[in-house]
Amino acid sequence: MSNPVLVEVSRGPLVESVHTGAVAIARPDGSLALSLGDVARPVFPRSSIKSIQCLPLIETGAAEHFGFTEADIALACASHVGSERHTKLAAAMLQKVGLGESALGCGAHAPLGASAAKALWRSGGEPSQLHNNCSGKHAGMLATAKHLGEPIENYWAADHPVQRRVHEAMSELTGLPLANDVMGIDGCSVPTWALPLSSLAGMFAQLVTGVGLSAERASAFSTIMNACWTEPELVAGPGRADSVVMKQLPGRVFMKTGAEGVYCGGFPELGLGFALKIDDGTTRASAGTVMALIERIIPGTPDLMHRNVLRSWRGAEVGTIRTAAALERAFDQLKV
Amino acid sequence: MSNPVLVEVSRGPLVESVHTGAVAIARPDGSLALSLGDVARPVFPRSSIKSIQCLPLIETGAAEHFGFTEADIALACASHVGSERHTKLAAAMLQKVGLGESALGCGAHAPLGASAAKALWRSGGEPSQLHNNCSGKHAGMLATAKHLGEPIENYWAADHPVQRRVHEAMSELTGLPLANDVMGIDGCSVPTWALPLSSLAGMFAQLVTGVGLSAERASAFSTIMNACWTEPELVAGPGRADSVVMKQLPGRVFMKTGAEGVYCGGFPELGLGFALKIDDGTTRASAGTVMALIERIIPGTPDLMHRNVLRSWRGAEVGTIRTAAALERAFDQLKV
Repeated sequence: MSNPVLVEVSRGPLVESVHTGAVAIARPDGSLALSLGDVARPVFPRSSIKSIQCLPLIETGAAEHFGFTEADIALACASHVGSERHTKLAAAMLQKVGLGESALGCGAHAPLGASAAKALWRSGGEPSQLHNNCSGKHAGMLATAKHLGEPIENYWAADHPVQRRVHEAMSELTGLPLANDVMGIDGCSVPTWALPLSSLAGMFAQLVTGVGLSAERASAFSTIMNACWTEPELVAGPGRADSVVMKQLPGRVFMKTGAEGVYCGGFPELGLGFALKIDDGTTRASAGTVMALIERIIPGTPDLMHRNVLRSWRGAEVGTIRTAAALERAFDQLKV
Repeated sequence: MSNPVLVEVSRGPLVESVHTGAVAIARPDGSLALSLGDVARPVFPRSSIKSIQCLPLIETGAAEHFGFTEADIALACASHVGSERHTKLAAAMLQKVGLGESALGCGAHAPLGASAAKALWRSGGEPSQLHNNCSGKHAGMLATAKHLGEPIENYWAADHPVQRRVHEAMSELTGLPLANDVMGIDGCSVPTWALPLSSLAGMFAQLVTGVGLSAERASAFSTIMNACWTEPELVAGPGRADSVVMKQLPGRVFMKTGAEGVYCGGFPELGLGFALKIDDGTTRASAGTVMALIERIIPGTPDLMHRNVLRSWRGAEVGTIRTAAALERAFDQLKV
């Protein structure tokens, strides 16, 4: 079965490229409010579940122990652009834990953000592991290990207690075993477990509402969401989809992008979670689908992103990125 | 009808993302040696036909008049990375024509190549139109207008003689009217006309062999191919697919990438042209398909690109980019 076209990219009079994919929107009981395409196939959530990878930081008491602020917690949930603000904060988190950049296991890469990269090169600097978009998450993981007196070596490996706790949380929340047959390794070296979009959507419906969770877990996730809504630009960066939306709609939309065209999140006041995957892994399509969903599902949403127009290098409009008919029809039938 | 999966991206035990598309391989008489997916749908060739946009530069005598070297002609066919070598050469081409950077209409953007961008920012510079990946093509277009005494203003517009000559060449070579119903505007502001992959493949079969062309056109395209084979790193940049392949297989493979997952080229000694389009517009898939085709069709080809392994930021292998079953089956049936 092939998935429907969700997003079309047009140029002049023609559709130039298309993006197929699947979308699930679920209630806390796991029932689906929207199901488009194959929502049962296991999908690696990648960075879209950084908020869950952050749960042990709160639940073990490590964040409180080390005096982590809302900014620190937001950065622990981030795929950040690698600006000076992000890297300095990651370094400060490590300092609170009594560690340095070399304790990180995420690897180094040039800043994701074009202006952050420009600033780094201008300054004569070179990328360190602090510039890795996952450095905050890794600093949080190290804090947890340190707080519990575990070895910090190989904290990124699948059999280390740090990653076992993430596995346990994911498995508990979804009721899935998440065994090695669905385990891959993420770009930042930690394990990622593939699961159906329907399960991811149901999990986020529970997390953003607290319905079906222990009081402790509900409180921990509430702390995480509030941190992201208070410091949305730490979760990604200025102008990035997650930051723009959570800055404009705090308390109403929780969302996080992941590599290879994955998106997860939820709408607390509507009692819904969502998860989607673009088959080809393209972010322009996953972000476009999420933006369209938010504009549809939250009445009176301001024009969020102006992402829909493609321009020439001289600034003339030459095409559009737009939702396709199958996605619009699914939105039409969505009952909230 | 949906196109078959051509390329799969795996992570651990699972396929994480897939890329669908269509491929045509044709002989100079237009007959198809391979047809996979919908090769009749009009596709914008974008930069994959820069060699044809360069034909008037040779055929009008402008290149000879201004003393353009093989390097200049290769840059006129390039989507270059914007390194100092590329930008200096583009400036020198304009100087030969008696013009400066401000005559260009391509617009400015940061260098496509990561190391070229780093070097520019390090130097304290800002991107000019010379850094636009199309600056060499535009310098060549300006040369043609100047040589023929045409106005240089708006040389990029669809109704300017410069673009009319490109249209005429494309239309002559394919026998297609290429009217406004298939015209879009490229990122560098010049028109691009959509046509079937089958027509593009047949056109390149004629061009790389000279079969079915006037002696003058065959000679002009031969000049263009030789320039690209002599200066392959000007056509893209070190490590880029087009440069790597044409450096290793001069005279045997002529190829050019285009935006939105298009690739065109040909194999002179085999008497074949090819054209392909990835539905979602992703270059990792278009380049992967072309590499696989070259390795299949030219016996004894060295391992061209090592593009097939996906690594974590720490360098561990975490996945692969590989050809899918439908593409391998089509290659198996290819008669050359």
